[in-house]
This record gives sequence, C-alpha cells and structure tokens, in this order.
Amino acid sequence: MKKIAVVLSGCGFLDGSEITESVSLLIALNQAGAKVSCFAPDIEFSATNHLNGNVTTEKRQLLSEAARIARGDIKALSTLKTSDFDAVAFPGGFGAAKNLCNWAEKGAACEVNPDVKRVVLEFHAASKPIGAICIAPVIIAKVLGEHKVTVTVGDDQATIAEILKTGAQHEECPVDDYITDRETKVVSTPAYMYGNAKPNEVFAGIFGLAHELVEWA
Amino acid sequence: MKKIAVVLSGCGFLDGSEITESVSLLIALNQAGAKVSCFAPDIEFSATNHLNGNVTTEKRQLLSEAARIARGDIKALSTLKTSDFDAVAFPGGFGAAKNLCNWAEKGAACEVNPDVKRVVLEFHAASKPIGAICIAPVIIAKVLGEHKVTVTVGDDQATIAEILKTGAQHEECPVDDYITDRETKVVSTPAYMYGNAKPNEVFAGIFGLAHELVEWA
Repeated sequence: MKKIAVVLSGCGFLDGSEITESVSLLIALNQAGAKVSCFAPDIEFSATNHLNGNVTTEKRQLLSEAARIARGDIKALSTLKTSDFDAVAFPGGFGAAKNLCNWAEKGAACEVNPDVKRVVLEFHAASKPIGAICIAPVIIAKVLGEHKVTVTVGDDQATIAEILKTGAQHEECPVDDYITDRETKVVSTPAYMYGNAKPNEVFAGIFGLAHELVEWA
Repeated sequence: MKKIAVVLSGCGFLDGSEITESVSLLIALNQAGAKVSCFAPDIEFSATNHLNGNVTTEKRQLLSEAARIARGDIKALSTLKTSDFDAVAFPGGFGAAKNLCNWAEKGAACEVNPDVKRVVLEFHAASKPIGAICIAPVIIAKVLGEHKVTVTVGDDQATIAEILKTGAQHEECPVDDYITDRETKVVSTPAYMYGNAKPNEVFAGIFGLAHELVEWA
C-alpha cells in the first residue's frame, strides 16, 4: 500500500486549504488504494470571514483548523519524515500562498515556510513524486525553479508570469485535467484557479492527479 | 436542471457539518447534473478544538463558518423558499445534532431549530424528496416521526433506540450504501456514523443518495 502525505494550510479557501480540493484529494487517494496521512504547520494565522471576504483581526491555530478537514487525524509538519512516505501532495486555497509561503504578498520573491521547503526538497532529492493543486504549484515553482520544473495553474496569466520568474516553466491545463513533469516527478492540476469551476470538475482533475501520484509512487 | 438545497450546520465534524460528507454531497449532486444552493442558520455556536476534541469558550458564527465549505456562496436558512427547490439534503457532523437541534443533549426529546423544522415539514408536505446523512436523519425522525418515516444511522444501537422513541423506524445500512423510504420520500446514508470509515466509502454512500435524490426530484 502506497503511503501519501497530504500537507494542509488551514480550512477554507480564503485563509487555508480549499476544502473541496482537500476532500477530493483524500477521496481520490483512498480510491486509488493509498494510505493517507495529513500534516500542517503548527503556526498562527489571521482568519478571513468567508461570508464577506474580510480579513479579520482574529488569530487561529493552523494545525487545529486543518484538523477539521482531517477529522483530528493530523500531525505537525515538522514531524513529517520523508522516508516514511512514497509521495506528498499539497491542496490549494489561499492558505497555500499566505500560510505555507508569502507568495500572496511577494510573488516570485517570496519566502517558503522552512518545513514546507524541506519537505519539497527532500521528496525531490529522493525522487519521490510531488502533487500540487490550484495555487500550490507556485510553492513547487519557487523551491524547484532552478530544476526548471513544469507546473500548471490553469490559464491565470498574472500568476503564470510570476511563476516564470522563478525559473520554472508553465503549461496551460483545463480544470478537469492535470499535467505531469516526468523529469522532476511533479504532478499539478488547476482546480479552483478557475474560480467558476464546479465541484465535480475540480474532483475530476484531482482524481487524475491522485491516481497518477499513487501509480508513480 | 433539478435544484437542490443543501443545509449546512458549520464547518467541521465536532461542531458543524462533517466536511467530507458535505463536499461529497456537493460533488455528487453536481455529477448528477443538479444545481446546488447552500443554506445555514445565521446563529452562534461554541467552537470545538479539532486537534484535541475540547469544547472551547470561543463563539463563532455558523453562517460564516459554513461559508468555508460553500466558498462564500451561501444564504441564511430563513430565506430558503421550498417552492424554489426540488429537493433538500442535510449532511451530518455533530453540528446537525447540536446546532440544527439539541438532539446531542436531549435525544428524542429534543427541540429542532424553527427554520430547520419548517423546511423539513414544507418539503414533506410538498412531496419533495429529503436527503439526510450520518447523524442528520435524527432530525428527520424527530420532525416526521408521526409519519413513521424510515431512516438509517448505520448500526449505532444507542442512536437507533432513541430514533425509535420518535415514532420513526430504523433500517441498518453499510457505509457505502443508502436506504430509501418511498412513502415519505426520505433518503439516508450512514457515512461517518461508522467512525472508522474511509473517505472513499463515505463518498460511495453519498454518491448513491445524491443520484437517488436528483432522479426523484
């Protein structure tokens, strides 16, 4: 049974992991016969009101919010041992761009959370596949840009332009499909980078990514 | 295109809607070709820490937390007009038993949130199908017990005994299946009433429920 680590960034598309993407990934990985373990950084973040989109002054703990998606079965990202897993995957959501790194603020000049950076570098060094959904491929671009990794964020031109600054390459992709970089073993799918996507379309793209990851792991 | 209303109770299995159940429902209803609209009561609740299970003193707004699952596209349950929809469905999670009613505290003697009760009674009176997942069938049992509605909560004997006190009937059901009461037009599936269920098994049961609801609507 292949063991896959999933790295969450909170719970909600405006300040954490996009929920439909995260659940689609958990369903599809289990459908593909994998054993899934969830992780998240044990850090604080500012909550966003998801009814009106306003960033609030309220602080929440990322690990306990991500635990809502994982039904409490989640560990601090600092404890993730690459040798225990066959692949790793990152759902999207704005949390990937503002909690796992500060891409939301700085784009290609961003800093990546040290544990997130370590995990990406270790899986790449061990030649183990890495999956990235929605906006999460920007993290992979930032960390593996010097390896000319190819990722997709759909057809969002502003994000694509920023990705190219990292040294990474970009390939456009529709919501219900995914792309694979066979050199760096990185699989990505755009999901809600298409803001009007439907849950079943997002699921279709992530289903493909999950099965590719498990086959390849 | 069939129009289905989904009633959420928060965001997280310990104090709101079970997230995998809710997303599975949204994916499956869209796969079945339905147009989905989300609703939730505009009330306050006590948040539970999902890392350690502790109920906290922190108050959160149910509607804005449920908006995390619905990507902001959600309305107050008080505005739900039965005439606008062909069916209604309730995901589970502890929020269904403590925010939509107080079954968690009082069992069969519980009171049901007035808007939730109105919606169940109106859909039943209009002969429109009602779906209920996990623990949410207890709400349907409480409101439609006098009509001898048949529901499932899996094989949880304590909950079954309490359901029978409402006048409702119970049928055991595995996690990946669902049951249909053709008299009252109520469809139910146990989902995470089986605590060790896997996301893909929960999805399978809800997929069946969603397609039955849409075909029947």
